[in-house]
Amino acid sequence: MANLRISIIGAGSAVFSMRIVSDLCKMPKLSGTEVVLMDIDEERLENFLVLARELTEFFGANLKFEKTLSLRKAIEGADFVINTALAGGHEYLNKVRAIGEKYGYYRGIDAQNYNFVTDYLNLTNWNQMTLFLKIANLIKELAPNAWYLQAANPVLEGTTLVSTETGIKMVGFCHGHFSVETLAELVGVKDYEWQVAGVNHGIWLTKFESRDGKNLYEELVKYADKPHKPSTPFDDQLSPVAWDMYRTYGLFPIGDTVRNSTWKYHRNLETKKRWYGEPWGGADSELGWEWYVSQLNAVVNMIELFAKAVKNGQKLTNAKDVVLNAIPHASEEWKNLIADLLDPSKLSREQHVPFIDSVVNSERRRFVVNVLNNGKIKGLDDDIAVEVCAYVEGEKFEFEEVSLPKRVLEWYLKPRTLLAKQALEVFKTKNLKLLEDILERDPRTKSSEQVRKVIDELYPIMLKEQKKVEEQE
Amino acid sequence: MANLRISIIGAGSAVFSMRIVSDLCKMPKLSGTEVVLMDIDEERLENFLVLARELTEFFGANLKFEKTLSLRKAIEGADFVINTALAGGHEYLNKVRAIGEKYGYYRGIDAQNYNFVTDYLNLTNWNQMTLFLKIANLIKELAPNAWYLQAANPVLEGTTLVSTETGIKMVGFCHGHFSVETLAELVGVKDYEWQVAGVNHGIWLTKFESRDGKNLYEELVKYADKPHKPSTPFDDQLSPVAWDMYRTYGLFPIGDTVRNSTWKYHRNLETKKRWYGEPWGGADSELGWEWYVSQLNAVVNMIELFAKAVKNGQKLTNAKDVVLNAIPHASEEWKNLIADLLDPSKLSREQHVPFIDSVVNSERRRFVVNVLNNGKIKGLDDDIAVEVCAYVEGEKFEFEEVSLPKRVLEWYLKPRTLLAKQALEVFKTKNLKLLEDILERDPRTKSSEQVRKVIDELYPIMLKEQKKVEEQE
Ligand SMILES: NC(=O)c1ccc[n+]([C@@H]2O[C@H](COP(=O)([O-])OP(=O)(O)OC[C@H]3O[C@@H](n4cnc5c(N)ncnc54)[C@H](O)[C@@H]3O)[C@@H](O)[C@H]2O)c1
Ligand SMILES: NC(=O)c1ccc[n+]([C@@H]2O[C@H](COP(=O)([O-])OP(=O)(O)OC[C@H]3O[C@@H](n4cnc5c(N)ncnc54)[C@H](O)[C@@H]3O)[C@@H](O)[C@H]2O)c1
Repeated sequence: MANLRISIIGAGSAVFSMRIVSDLCKMPKLSGTEVVLMDIDEERLENFLVLARELTEFFGANLKFEKTLSLRKAIEGADFVINTALAGGHEYLNKVRAIGEKYGYYRGIDAQNYNFVTDYLNLTNWNQMTLFLKIANLIKELAPNAWYLQAANPVLEGTTLVSTETGIKMVGFCHGHFSVETLAELVGVKDYEWQVAGVNHGIWLTKFESRDGKNLYEELVKYADKPHKPSTPFDDQLSPVAWDMYRTYGLFPIGDTVRNSTWKYHRNLETKKRWYGEPWGGADSELGWEWYVSQLNAVVNMIELFAKAVKNGQKLTNAKDVVLNAIPHASEEWKNLIADLLDPSKLSREQHVPFIDSVVNSERRRFVVNVLNNGKIKGLDDDIAVEVCAYVEGEKFEFEEVSLPKRVLEWYLKPRTLLAKQALEVFKTKNLKLLEDILERDPRTKSSEQVRKVIDELYPIMLKEQKKVEEQE
Repeated sequence: MANLRISIIGAGSAVFSMRIVSDLCKMPKLSGTEVVLMDIDEERLENFLVLARELTEFFGANLKFEKTLSLRKAIEGADFVINTALAGGHEYLNKVRAIGEKYGYYRGIDAQNYNFVTDYLNLTNWNQMTLFLKIANLIKELAPNAWYLQAANPVLEGTTLVSTETGIKMVGFCHGHFSVETLAELVGVKDYEWQVAGVNHGIWLTKFESRDGKNLYEELVKYADKPHKPSTPFDDQLSPVAWDMYRTYGLFPIGDTVRNSTWKYHRNLETKKRWYGEPWGGADSELGWEWYVSQLNAVVNMIELFAKAVKNGQKLTNAKDVVLNAIPHASEEWKNLIADLLDPSKLSREQHVPFIDSVVNSERRRFVVNVLNNGKIKGLDDDIAVEVCAYVEGEKFEFEEVSLPKRVLEWYLKPRTLLAKQALEVFKTKNLKLLEDILERDPRTKSSEQVRKVIDELYPIMLKEQKKVEEQE
């Protein structure tokens, strides 16, 4: 197909954008695509553009690039808009979290039962939700036939908000379900069938079978409570939390679901360490998150170095070595990332580009998608975004039948989706009594004064940051 | 209709039973009814039988009485079974509450957001739920065509449990909706239309209009935050809590709904006093409940005196004076109660007898009933008991159309019904991990050890008390 136009909003989110561009290079049928890179950070954008062009040349692919600081320009005429922006950046996350902690809300007020992922705010992120809506409304106006692909968090709230408010064509994507592979490795199977279902960051292993129909849960439980020493803060798929959640809810929690548990595992650093393992206590403790941010920063630095080397005339593989020479302790992850990006036979784990290919070229593939429920998961409201398995071919989605046990519905998914709806209502109405109500039920709240104070300090900041996005071009 | 047989389980709950018998005496079409009084407390039963017979003679009514200690005997051949028993009695309530408080759970572990009514346990009352099921199953076996009328709490959980598990004909009744009159008095209307809907102890004023169609909410809000000095701990319909709940949820909370708020109003005695008023801090504080229990005890004592006087040959009106002479400070409430019971033109506020009359004699009347939702309130699960307005005529229920705003659904009714379902699952499965899960999310929980300890101490008691009911004849 000629003249496909794909926009990446927040293209400065470099690792993500590299993966997208690398995937595009490896998809012959998407040859000729025009990629619009949009960000508000000019330097990041420029750096990434240099790398994107070089990557394309490296693969001998045919992609055209444009960059812009304007949302309107990015969206005009697009066929697909991928949003990976983080309004306010990590700085904003740190700020609202610090204010929460000042008033006794460990890890910030957004940390709530079933929602502990640190960059997955749903109460204080009015800027981010405003950006989602702004992009969606611009799509409606300027590219009404375009697909909106949501990569930025919160995917659950974002997909729900945009789909119910604008009705544009939309899918939210995450990659949490790849953790099923950890379980397959554990039980030593290569060839198996799996299915997950739930909501974003709250998905459950509804099927885990060998090809000959044997239920692999039976194998899995043989490893229950196997001692676990995490290699990174994110290495939690086999942590004691995962096993304990399995015992409580009756299905295995997959991917970031293990982070999204209850205060039982998150009460304080000591508790987190006990459950998610030493030394970090999981990705969302102060230690785990510090580790993550320093990794992100290291990668950003490397990308800068990388881009500089390329600008200085180095070819990609040489530039890669320049980075490694400059930072000899560059992590395994970085090395693997680069190796994968440059390996013509390997696609990244992001679903966006294969999805685009499936839609545009009617290539039937299986995805894990976030879309409005509308009956897909019985027992959940129709107007909430669920994460389920579906085959996509052209614009046709064929959703797999799924049945979630009452236990998971009533002890996890219903309370989680209630929180999502409440958070969205707070955002839409700006009714602070509702935000108050959430905090008055928060286990960390000792008095109504505490609630009032934290809201008093957060509210003007939330409004101001929302305004910034509203005024963005 | 001849040969109607009505059984009262827990007939020793004297005030309630007196009202039922007095109402029966005043319903000419129910003349000839046989009333079976069942209780496990022989003395209470005997006392009440004496009074019931005397009351019947006083009105010149035609009722026959039987008493029995056996559930089977009480239920065999019944047309209506009214259950007002409290398994374990107030002693049990005190015991489990004290254990909760020993481990830091102020007002006991059953006190939860949207469920603070002190004799409305749903987590530790396995005895009470077992009794509900036992009665229902005996009805199925021995009187399959009988109606089961649920007066005993928890009506929400009880009606849900019995209806989903046994499918017998059943209604739960409460009298909370009469508090609408307090609002009518406040705005000075005599003739008005009203409607409530929600779940038991969680009902909302969905209609409040003058006969000529004026929305009386507009009048009501003129009195918002009128200073309120409660005359009893139960005098909360116009308390600051009610106004604050109205502001948060957008509809006025009616009756016991005002008690069933969130920790915002219940955090500690001081908070309760601030919101429900001095000196008690509402019905469910340690002070308010002490007041209530002492009232209950006083009434029980008076009934004993009353019964003794009747046994000694006094007629009812004299016996009444004997009591008043013996206890000159007998409360207004007692005096009014007696006056109403003896007033041939006044029915009590209990809906049971009018309901029986409507069913048996096809007298069309309006009731507020608790029955399985099955679509009556959109947005709530089908398999949960809701409290709604309905006309009853014969066995036909004509439910009023009702629409509850999203706010009430998503901020009150959904979390409340989730709690009910979770509580019922704990009861049915005896899965202590689930009870743990509820407590791990409880604002009063500081550590998992605290959770384990309180459950360790409660669990054997809960089991033992359940067993007692299972072994009951
Ligand atoms: N769905 C997934 O699989 C997945 C996985 C990881 C991270 N995420 C999410 O992706 C998002 C980005 O995370 P990150 O760590 O890369 O953040 P980041 O801050 O490093 O990158 C985000 C980019 O967005 C840009 N940006 C900020 N405000 C913008 C605006 N108003 N308009 C356009 N661009 C803007 C920034 O300049 C930055 O380049 C977050 O929401 C994160 O939670 C999603
Ligand atoms: N629905 C309503 O409108 C409403 C209003 C007030 C109280 N209540 C409820 O009514 C119930 C009774 O309250 P109360 O204060 O009168 O209690 P109570 O203890 O004074 O009376 C209950 C009676 O039940 C009897 N009983 C206990 N275990 C029994 C068993 N296993 N079998 C048969 N009888 C048994 C007791 O002996 C006692 O006579 C409670 O559940 C209370 O919450 C309901």
